Amino acid sequence: MSISSGDPLALLNGITSGQRRALARAISFCENSPDESRPLISALYRSKRLGRSKVVGITGSPGVGKSTLTGFLIRHLRTRGYSVGVILIDPSSPFTGGALLGDRIRMSESNTDTGVFIRSMGSRGHLGGLSLATQDTVSLLDAFGFDYILIETVGIGQAETEIVKTADLTVVVAVPGLGDEIQIIKAGVMEIGDIFVVNKADKDGAEKVITEINMMLDMAPGVPGKDLPRPPVLRCIANRDQGVSELLTAVDERWLQLDISDILLVRRRERIWQAVNESLHYSLMLNLRPYLSVPSRHSLVERIRLGESSPFEEAQGLLHQKFF
Amino acid sequence: MSISSGDPLALLNGITSGQRRALARAISFCENSPDESRPLISALYRSKRLGRSKVVGITGSPGVGKSTLTGFLIRHLRTRGYSVGVILIDPSSPFTGGALLGDRIRMSESNTDTGVFIRSMGSRGHLGGLSLATQDTVSLLDAFGFDYILIETVGIGQAETEIVKTADLTVVVAVPGLGDEIQIIKAGVMEIGDIFVVNKADKDGAEKVITEINMMLDMAPGVPGKDLPRPPVLRCIANRDQGVSELLTAVDERWLQLDISDILLVRRRERIWQAVNESLHYSLMLNLRPYLSVPSRHSLVERIRLGESSPFEEAQGLLHQKFF
Repeated sequence: MSISSGDPLALLNGITSGQRRALARAISFCENSPDESRPLISALYRSKRLGRSKVVGITGSPGVGKSTLTGFLIRHLRTRGYSVGVILIDPSSPFTGGALLGDRIRMSESNTDTGVFIRSMGSRGHLGGLSLATQDTVSLLDAFGFDYILIETVGIGQAETEIVKTADLTVVVAVPGLGDEIQIIKAGVMEIGDIFVVNKADKDGAEKVITEINMMLDMAPGVPGKDLPRPPVLRCIANRDQGVSELLTAVDERWLQLDISDILLVRRRERIWQAVNESLHYSLMLNLRPYLSVPSRHSLVERIRLGESSPFEEAQGLLHQKFF
Repeated sequence: MSISSGDPLALLNGITSGQRRALARAISFCENSPDESRPLISALYRSKRLGRSKVVGITGSPGVGKSTLTGFLIRHLRTRGYSVGVILIDPSSPFTGGALLGDRIRMSESNTDTGVFIRSMGSRGHLGGLSLATQDTVSLLDAFGFDYILIETVGIGQAETEIVKTADLTVVVAVPGLGDEIQIIKAGVMEIGDIFVVNKADKDGAEKVITEINMMLDMAPGVPGKDLPRPPVLRCIANRDQGVSELLTAVDERWLQLDISDILLVRRRERIWQAVNESLHYSLMLNLRPYLSVPSRHSLVERIRLGESSPFEEAQGLLHQKFF
């Protein structure tokens, strides 16, 4: 592909001058060539154009209506005059990739609007890992200048929940009748939610779910030393556009609370630290590549399999061979 | 806890002489002290007691009845005279931990049987990561001498799907009426299944799900150069113990096919390689710890936040500072 041979500086210039095609190419470049794209990402960080977008995570179990909600959030953001970049984390695999595109099509009207940019990412098939790919995309959308960045992801799974840490704040979506409170518990997202919203709030059991979430939030410990109000629990009927505008107002309010209490700064520092961590692992593997030819890798594995060595000893050996 | 100060050799001796308490303590030790437990795990690898258990993954969306199925699989394994270790990966968080124990209680009858050992692990809160903790536990159960090791995990999420790679073979569980084929697609587990089983097969829509899975399997590419039959699609009604014995027979049959075709060996080598990879990252962080005091970490993050540096450059710098 000609994309991977693209000139990083040309791409960066394209992005900062508002060229959507440069943005799309840069995202693909980072997805497909996590190593070759490091200079581009480093230049982004040094461009002093990062940290201006409000990054909002939207998470919840499959079937709670995240896509519909995201669609209407985009519409309301546009009505209020904001531009928005959207990242959809799709847990389908490469083998079945595209099968979930059906429920994305609803969003396609946004594709003719230059104030909206939507990107889908699979849970797998990223050489540098999903988390790195998401962080890169957030940085690219941020540098491009979007007022808001929405990240929609399934709230189940270790890697997927980690992704929420890429956001400034997170909206957790629930619905009645989906195994009741279990959906929140299973999702394990109770402690990462800044705002909870019960979708399909006209359905039986909505009040029960709302009460349960409120109870759990009342029991949860607050942030020590910070004067942060408890997360609100809202209700909406996304497919009738009821409650979505209120949700957006709550997002802005919460973002301000996080900003004033310095929690936003803490989270952004944490996000940077995580990026350093991932870069460390990535740099290590790049540095070790020459020592891990197919035959030497094979004999390393065989030594372990035959009980002559262990993974930890081989790892230590590799680090010493290369670095000491 | 006194566990972390335990003598690795004493623990290893306890495990290899069949002491369940030593086994339980060793698992906790690896969970709580991933660094201090490396010598124990290294000794395990060198004990030449690994690779004897049949490791079976059981995965599927929430609500398909994995726990019930696992419970009856344990019973049938015991009836056939086999011992079995069980790892339950529980995606609930520390905050809400224990809330899912309800559906575990059904299994408690197995707790009085010394041929069965059951261990629950949360998706988070593992210092060394869930994948490392699972691999360690598999190694410990393997060295203890269980004939079978069952790993039950939700088939959603990158980290959770990775865990399946810890198994020799994987059973994917589906049910009718849970968003039809989407459950399989969303789970992204189509290509990792060695056996597919449709639970609650007496319910409406069972035949539809079976047909759909069969169609998807017919479209899927086989393993190149390997004479491996296509994965079977079975049906069962786990809570009435219908079809579970047949599933177990299918597991044994598939295991033999994988063994004969050398795919089992390839998978086990891949598993070892993954353990080396995780150990590499882990060793790196251990080695860098002295360079990452709170103040130096803070100024590193601030350099990046203020646009004077980037994660990749700082990572490279750390590697060079320490290792070159």
